[in-house]
Amino acid sequence: MNFYTRKWIKPEDLNPNGSLFGGTLLRWIDEEAVIYAIVQLGNPKIVTKYISEINFVSSAQQGDIIEMGIEAIAFGRTSLTMRCEVRNKITRKTILSIDKLVFVNLDEDGNPTPHHKTEITYAYMGIERNGE
Amino acid sequence: MNFYTRKWIKPEDLNPNGSLFGGTLLRWIDEEAVIYAIVQLGNPKIVTKYISEINFVSSAQQGDIIEMGIEAIAFGRTSLTMRCEVRNKITRKTILSIDKLVFVNLDEDGNPTPHHKTEITYAYMGIERNGE
Amino acid sequence: MNFYTRKWIKPEDLNPNGSLFGGTLLRWIDEEAVIYAIVQLGNPKIVTKYISEINFVSSAQQGDIIEMGIEAIAFGRTSLTMRCEVRNKITRKTILSIDKLVFVNLDEDGNPTPHHKTEITYAYMGIERNGE
Amino acid sequence: MNFYTRKWIKPEDLNPNGSLFGGTLLRWIDEEAVIYAIVQLGNPKIVTKYISEINFVSSAQQGDIIEMGIEAIAFGRTSLTMRCEVRNKITRKTILSIDKLVFVNLDEDGNPTPHHKTEITYAYMGIERNGE
Amino acid sequence: MNFYTRKWIKPEDLNPNGSLFGGTLLRWIDEEAVIYAIVQLGNPKIVTKYISEINFVSSAQQGDIIEMGIEAIAFGRTSLTMRCEVRNKITRKTILSIDKLVFVNLDEDGNPTPHHKTEITYAYMGIERNGE
Amino acid sequence: MNFYTRKWIKPEDLNPNGSLFGGTLLRWIDEEAVIYAIVQLGNPKIVTKYISEINFVSSAQQGDIIEMGIEAIAFGRTSLTMRCEVRNKITRKTILSIDKLVFVNLDEDGNPTPHHKTEITYAYMGIERNGE
Repeated sequence: MNFYTRKWIKPEDLNPNGSLFGGTLLRWIDEEAVIYAIVQLGNPKIVTKYISEINFVSSAQQGDIIEMGIEAIAFGRTSLTMRCEVRNKITRKTILSIDKLVFVNLDEDGNPTPHHKTEITYAYMGIERNGE
Repeated sequence: MNFYTRKWIKPEDLNPNGSLFGGTLLRWIDEEAVIYAIVQLGNPKIVTKYISEINFVSSAQQGDIIEMGIEAIAFGRTSLTMRCEVRNKITRKTILSIDKLVFVNLDEDGNPTPHHKTEITYAYMGIERNGE
Repeated sequence: MNFYTRKWIKPEDLNPNGSLFGGTLLRWIDEEAVIYAIVQLGNPKIVTKYISEINFVSSAQQGDIIEMGIEAIAFGRTSLTMRCEVRNKITRKTILSIDKLVFVNLDEDGNPTPHHKTEITYAYMGIERNGE
Repeated sequence: MNFYTRKWIKPEDLNPNGSLFGGTLLRWIDEEAVIYAIVQLGNPKIVTKYISEINFVSSAQQGDIIEMGIEAIAFGRTSLTMRCEVRNKITRKTILSIDKLVFVNLDEDGNPTPHHKTEITYAYMGIERNGE
Repeated sequence: MNFYTRKWIKPEDLNPNGSLFGGTLLRWIDEEAVIYAIVQLGNPKIVTKYISEINFVSSAQQGDIIEMGIEAIAFGRTSLTMRCEVRNKITRKTILSIDKLVFVNLDEDGNPTPHHKTEITYAYMGIERNGE
Repeated sequence: MNFYTRKWIKPEDLNPNGSLFGGTLLRWIDEEAVIYAIVQLGNPKIVTKYISEINFVSSAQQGDIIEMGIEAIAFGRTSLTMRCEVRNKITRKTILSIDKLVFVNLDEDGNPTPHHKTEITYAYMGIERNGE
């Protein structure tokens, strides 16, 4: 799993107890997963269909840098299933993990439509391979 | 299940496809669930531990009014389990449902601690009963 | 008066003195009043016309849970007048009260138009009556 | 009355009907009034006590530039009373006016305390005089 | 140089080290510069083309009031060049200065187009002359 | 240069002309650069000192996915100099480039202090090398 988007925990991201507000973290994850799905399926019209159990393993504090990792684990006919892990960038301690995030590929009218993808396309990822 | 907090879907809440951004909805739900848990357990020091499957049943559009319902379904020794439903306030169509949101009651040092609650306390709810 | 929407005061809601920023509270109230008016009048095209004196009775602090109550007090031909009270959900201490918020019902062209409502319609409210 | 702070109405500031959300405007005004009061009284510890009738005269649209004017109209022993006008910067059409915004000067313990000011102090204003 | 827009530094504006987040300040400056350019050129269709060196001279803290000054320094055929200074409103200490911000005047199709302006137009500014 | 953080352009990020608001982009870049500097220098106490010319090469639209790349180009005794490029993730078209962003490493008292780093440390980056 590769980790791309990072966040620096600022006061605006905290709950009243002074740690990262869970709802804010969920918002970040949803955006990261949508981006991953759009890039993999090559279609901007994608909706979140299902998110499996979310385990909040540890919390994050003001000033922490966290990074979010998403990885495709199954390509359905019209769907893409990913897993997600959020961790502290410095300590690498896991903050949260989600086993399955399922997004559905839609056509212009908003109906599920086949995406014809069967595997991860590295060309779209942020990693430059072989000295590119 | 009673529904309390409402939201009016504004441009700032939309994804690029013009419907309610899922991440924003998750952020709202997390806040509503924390509030419900704090009110029921009488303790502001509470953390999200686990969220079960999230089903995105239908979407919401700009201008829609949605309302969020939370209900306690199990009182553990140190935890509280709730279910959640978000629906369109006018049409009553379900937008999203979550079977289980588990929050844990913490002591001053951040360790799980018994909350000594075993049932829903209506006195804390927003509904005024019997002509109050 | 029934209370629906709740807020958990987070760092992002504070003024530099560490209490709830008044402007943020006013923003929340305006949204709650618009929602109430839309639900009662059954029309999404409604504008704030007038807000009477606002009394800031007490302040709210980080971690407080507040709840907002709105109640219709007069149905004009094209307008709806409401009163508002915001209070601390746990202590029930009043934070702010507004005697009159007047909203006007508009037609498609943005002109005031009769709404044909004369009383509060409970069917639209969040309270499930008679054991629903 | 001089006008200082300006805003460029962006999508994030709109209500679902596509015009400036009233609550957002109220938030901006409250901040502008607090700033004016702090500058005039030379004390950062100031709270909003009372806001008189708010008249929404006209609306603002996406892309409009608005400017906010605040003017002190009465110096009490511990309070400062201001009036406010918001207008379109280009057309100068009034968007909103408020006759009285009363702020109270507090001491370290949060109690009202005399501010010893009796008139507007231009030195603190944004206008450079004599050779602008 | 005249100073118009002011900001009151709130918790939502801070970086994790507790001072004003630089990115937030840049966002405010960009908005202020666009507003100045739109007012001077009388055209809402303007884009940022170039920003010269930005010097962060001193920082701002929670509760500080800052003010932003923009001044046109050169009128090109299709562009407007401005300089910017941000300072603490009370102490007048400079927080940040930018020598050149270049904006380009666009036509309906998004292409650079002459603006026919050659000097600062005071009529559009916030200062009321002759009897302020 | 490796690209990490991505953004999905939503309505909340737009200027009134419907493209990505430049100020919002600058805010994102500043956060990304701070994160990069903290990770490389292993010190959370870092301030933006200087940003060189910013060239806005092309704009981004609602729904676009953009990615931000930062790369260290010089390690001073107490400073770190980076360059930045923002591009469209799908088309790889450059949106903005900045030649130099200089951050300074501070000690507990806020004074510049040597960071003892002389080159990029890959261990801290998001890329897992050699099959990790």
